[in-house]
Amino acid sequence: MADLGGGRRPIAGRKPGDKRVRVERHHSPYFRYTGRGQLTAKAAANAPTTGIGRVSMRAKGFLLGRPLANEEEAGERLSKKKALAIFSSDAISSSAYATEEIILAFLLAGVAGAAFVLSIPIAIAIAVLLGIVAFSYRQVCYAYPNGGGSYSVSKANLGRTASLVAASALLIDYTLTVAVSTSSAVEQIASAVPALHDWTVPIAILAIALITLGNLRGLREAGTIFAIPTYLFLGSAFLMIAIGAFRIVFAGDTGPTPSPEVIRATQETATSVGILILLRAFASGAVALTGTEAIATGVPAFQPPEPRNAARTLMTMAVILGTLFIGITFLASNFHILPVEEPKQTVIAQIARHVYGDTIAFYLFQGFTALLLFLAANTSYNAFPRLAAVLGEDGFFPRQFAFRGDRLAFSTGIMLLGLVAGAVVVAAHAETHALIPLYAVGVFIDFTIAQSGMVRHWLRTRDQGWRRRLTINAVGALLTAVIAVVVTSVKFEAGARFVVILIPVLVGAMLFIRRQYDAQSAELQVRDDLVFDRPHREQRVVIPVNGINRSVVQAVMFGKSLASDPSLLQAVFVTTDLDEAEALRERWDRQLPGVPLVVVESPFRALVGPVITYLEVLDLAWPPDREAPTTIVVLPEYVAKHWWDRLLYNQTAKRLKAALVGREHTVIADVPYRRSEHQDEPPPHA
Amino acid sequence: MADLGGGRRPIAGRKPGDKRVRVERHHSPYFRYTGRGQLTAKAAANAPTTGIGRVSMRAKGFLLGRPLANEEEAGERLSKKKALAIFSSDAISSSAYATEEIILAFLLAGVAGAAFVLSIPIAIAIAVLLGIVAFSYRQVCYAYPNGGGSYSVSKANLGRTASLVAASALLIDYTLTVAVSTSSAVEQIASAVPALHDWTVPIAILAIALITLGNLRGLREAGTIFAIPTYLFLGSAFLMIAIGAFRIVFAGDTGPTPSPEVIRATQETATSVGILILLRAFASGAVALTGTEAIATGVPAFQPPEPRNAARTLMTMAVILGTLFIGITFLASNFHILPVEEPKQTVIAQIARHVYGDTIAFYLFQGFTALLLFLAANTSYNAFPRLAAVLGEDGFFPRQFAFRGDRLAFSTGIMLLGLVAGAVVVAAHAETHALIPLYAVGVFIDFTIAQSGMVRHWLRTRDQGWRRRLTINAVGALLTAVIAVVVTSVKFEAGARFVVILIPVLVGAMLFIRRQYDAQSAELQVRDDLVFDRPHREQRVVIPVNGINRSVVQAVMFGKSLASDPSLLQAVFVTTDLDEAEALRERWDRQLPGVPLVVVESPFRALVGPVITYLEVLDLAWPPDREAPTTIVVLPEYVAKHWWDRLLYNQTAKRLKAALVGREHTVIADVPYRRSEHQDEPPPHA
Repeated sequence: MADLGGGRRPIAGRKPGDKRVRVERHHSPYFRYTGRGQLTAKAAANAPTTGIGRVSMRAKGFLLGRPLANEEEAGERLSKKKALAIFSSDAISSSAYATEEIILAFLLAGVAGAAFVLSIPIAIAIAVLLGIVAFSYRQVCYAYPNGGGSYSVSKANLGRTASLVAASALLIDYTLTVAVSTSSAVEQIASAVPALHDWTVPIAILAIALITLGNLRGLREAGTIFAIPTYLFLGSAFLMIAIGAFRIVFAGDTGPTPSPEVIRATQETATSVGILILLRAFASGAVALTGTEAIATGVPAFQPPEPRNAARTLMTMAVILGTLFIGITFLASNFHILPVEEPKQTVIAQIARHVYGDTIAFYLFQGFTALLLFLAANTSYNAFPRLAAVLGEDGFFPRQFAFRGDRLAFSTGIMLLGLVAGAVVVAAHAETHALIPLYAVGVFIDFTIAQSGMVRHWLRTRDQGWRRRLTINAVGALLTAVIAVVVTSVKFEAGARFVVILIPVLVGAMLFIRRQYDAQSAELQVRDDLVFDRPHREQRVVIPVNGINRSVVQAVMFGKSLASDPSLLQAVFVTTDLDEAEALRERWDRQLPGVPLVVVESPFRALVGPVITYLEVLDLAWPPDREAPTTIVVLPEYVAKHWWDRLLYNQTAKRLKAALVGREHTVIADVPYRRSEHQDEPPPHA
Repeated sequence: MADLGGGRRPIAGRKPGDKRVRVERHHSPYFRYTGRGQLTAKAAANAPTTGIGRVSMRAKGFLLGRPLANEEEAGERLSKKKALAIFSSDAISSSAYATEEIILAFLLAGVAGAAFVLSIPIAIAIAVLLGIVAFSYRQVCYAYPNGGGSYSVSKANLGRTASLVAASALLIDYTLTVAVSTSSAVEQIASAVPALHDWTVPIAILAIALITLGNLRGLREAGTIFAIPTYLFLGSAFLMIAIGAFRIVFAGDTGPTPSPEVIRATQETATSVGILILLRAFASGAVALTGTEAIATGVPAFQPPEPRNAARTLMTMAVILGTLFIGITFLASNFHILPVEEPKQTVIAQIARHVYGDTIAFYLFQGFTALLLFLAANTSYNAFPRLAAVLGEDGFFPRQFAFRGDRLAFSTGIMLLGLVAGAVVVAAHAETHALIPLYAVGVFIDFTIAQSGMVRHWLRTRDQGWRRRLTINAVGALLTAVIAVVVTSVKFEAGARFVVILIPVLVGAMLFIRRQYDAQSAELQVRDDLVFDRPHREQRVVIPVNGINRSVVQAVMFGKSLASDPSLLQAVFVTTDLDEAEALRERWDRQLPGVPLVVVESPFRALVGPVITYLEVLDLAWPPDREAPTTIVVLPEYVAKHWWDRLLYNQTAKRLKAALVGREHTVIADVPYRRSEHQDEPPPHA
């Protein structure tokens, strides 16, 4: 029955028996007619129509950009080269701090000298582990071409609890990826510009704020521009390794002028290093594996054949990361480099400074490294909100996580991630090292669950070659499980315990939320075979008033039309002052004829209680043989123009509303008084 | 038309032309019939009717006590003895710290020895000042028998700005009375029990919390029990002064074994003391005058003849306070007592310990002192919320400050006072000395404004003997003005500047609030001669739905009865999934016949924008020659049972409501779905 925008008059085309709104094919700036009683909103339909709305929309547009339609999401399919750059930033960027973590493990154990000897074998062991994990995930690419994150793999194969453990571990990991990558990026910057040493926390927070804002704008990581930092870093890092290795092998370069600590360390022997220290160093370096699963979760973004391209990219990534990691560790060992605290000098920065000298090349390399690390942080801003949205759709997270904002971004998830990551950075004083113990635990728990899920998958499907595939995943699962246990044990005091406590708490919270939604859904269930066409009960209208003013008059005139019967309409004035009430009554009877006014004296000065009880008394007085009417309480509301108006107006209405929401068979009708409606017209009169 | 509670059926007694609700005289547990269409709520009418309400009511009752009726407020008239105790606690309790403040002024200036010589003359000068101020206020008792606080005196005589300055100064003073008295009380306790030295802040906060809670319960300070601490303190303090003075005069007692500081101090001479130090000492001691105005503001509480009884009580109080202050200063000087910091030993505690020895008498005296100080803090809990309520009624404070809670207490004001005083105590680490500079400034500004108002009053009224009276008040005004300036100058850096900044800020805020209310009132004004009986415009009903469930069915059945015409009714389903929409349409047409369903596909996944724009489009399509209908948007709401439900449900409805409040000619009807309404009945069906 609605003529959409273009027309001047409604089209009276309703056939008897067809009560559906008939929408004519019509050009409209807001909607397209797409079927019987069906419209599709155009972009203009999202534009707010009020003045305030338009201003806030414009501000939002400036900050966040114009709204995007669903179709704009799909975007391009990624070539392998681009996909490598985009999906690997998280994994590859971990080479910026993994070597340093190994060295720190020895340094903190008081055997810094051992680092120069044992780092390389440990790095090789980790690279082997990386290979195994990569082989395991390679199979995920084929088995779950729609993107197999550990949540979906475990949901399909291991059941609800395992999948929620995986989800919790993933949420923690994504948050820590942001915190660790940002902190490390800022450390790289501060290593090049020592003046910034005292400003790491504010810079990290600023970076997180900008990345959060960018993602609220719906920042797409698919653009070519996101591939650039990865290749810039890879190019300059491999150049550094090549130059460094050449100088070590052929020129006998033993590193920069050693500090007293380094001299002391080099004179130590490695014989005194116990197994626990080795395990710790291994557990620290294992952080290099973070991000390995990213490609397996992003299979649908590849060009066809998606699984094969993804699998190949994954293997390429593993080879690059492994080489890079071993190369950097080789340079660090042979250059005898230890991390320096005051002012902060990361291991990779010291290597770069030694190789490139104090030239522009060094500063560029540090910039590329920081850029890659920020990019790695950004990947979590896609993964975390998406997982939260999936959890929201599955009922494990509040549903608003599944809403998209104007820019197709899951705004709630993005903001939550930004806030939590920011808090973590502040708590850890933007020190990468403080966060690594928490980081590694979640990653290996995830690996274990995903690989176990794959084992179960092969047992279930028994696809071609399942025995071989099962073996690979079983080895992966076993190995990552062992390492998860090792990492948790040796890093327990250093922070792993937080994760061990947090995961069950998160799982419990998610199960709780799901139980709430299940209960609500069961409660609201309507049998499919019922027909609802009985008229509604009678309607009583009660209008609490505070005198006669435009807002009250508007509410009364509206309420008048709602009552089933004039006898079911009344205004109620609660007062402590009966003289004032008499004056009001005189004016009321004259100006608002036909609307009975009941005065309730409230010696307790309370308002809410007497109104509610008065409604109760009205119901008690209803003949018991007739169904009691629905009570519509009409509340005049003064629309806030400024933020402070919320403190000055409508406080009484707010309290009344809160009490009425709990009352049976009661509807609350808010009649907002808007200046705009009335400023040009005189008040209505007879 | 309502039979109140007792009856079974309504009494059909409405005469034609008299549309007023006729309420029969009837016994009802909730209301009394008190006139034509007029009821008076009984206590039971305040009882909540929902389960949650009842539980929260019971918890509130346990914490805050049963609700009180207006009539219970009047309370007893106070005899002079009781009034002295009750109104003077603030003034008299300042003798617990005023002497110490004088000594500290010398001590901090590095001339501690001068304190032993100069404290007494300064105390005498302050006592003289007290006498003058008391004489000035004595006249306020006669001129303003309804209670003349400086706000009302200056409002009547000096205009809005002066009265708001007075109000601001008073609000600051009341807050500081709580903070200073509580801090001093805790210091007295810690002086007796040094183990509590590190716990002063938590104890002070606990005390403020308890006093706040007590006042939310509607604690009356009129009870005899509140007179006891004052007399206990007065008795034991005068006993201490008598014993001490006797020992000084007749036994040559020179105080406790002197500490090295005291020995050093006694060897100093007082010749080097400059005028600035003297002024500072005087300004510090002037804090003894705080609370002097209390009696003048409480005249109506006295037995008749009220003004005379109040005036006499005021003079008695001044004599007692003056004697006490000089007496304590005399003992402190002759016993050579300096405040001790670690562990805290107040001057009055050291005197008491020396006079009473380490006996039970000493501990009792400290207990009485602390009790009196807590009582002084409590007086502000009557004064502050009352002033805030008056300001609320005058439109200078948000109106909710004028609402009374169930226990006749101005809950908002009480909570604000508790929060701000608590924050001040935390900021000052519960140290009395840190707060004194702020305290004295406001008090003297108030004195000055009140006395100036009185000068104006005499000039205006020219009552009998006005010349003499004017002279007294003029002297009082001049003197307190000079001291206000002196106190502000010498204490500026120590904290007085905060008050100097805060007063104009508060005045500005109050003027701003008043301007808002004035503007709203003008905007809502209705001419007295208009009659409103025109029927309301047509009504269109739009029900945004998310599927078919009990909550939606309830909202639809309700909305159905609101539309002026079946063609003005429709449900709107916003979706991104047209298959889901088709399935819903099939079920909808079958189960909810007669209610057209419009499907809006939203490729932007937005919900609020398309709904608002759809309403806009409906209005555009309305024939321009007819007045557009009021749009009633019916929103199904799921009623929260737990606090976390607010996060899980109704998020969409909340966003929609926020957008609709700004839309012209739109009413928002909330149809809450309550489990209780439906659990026992099957869903309605044909």
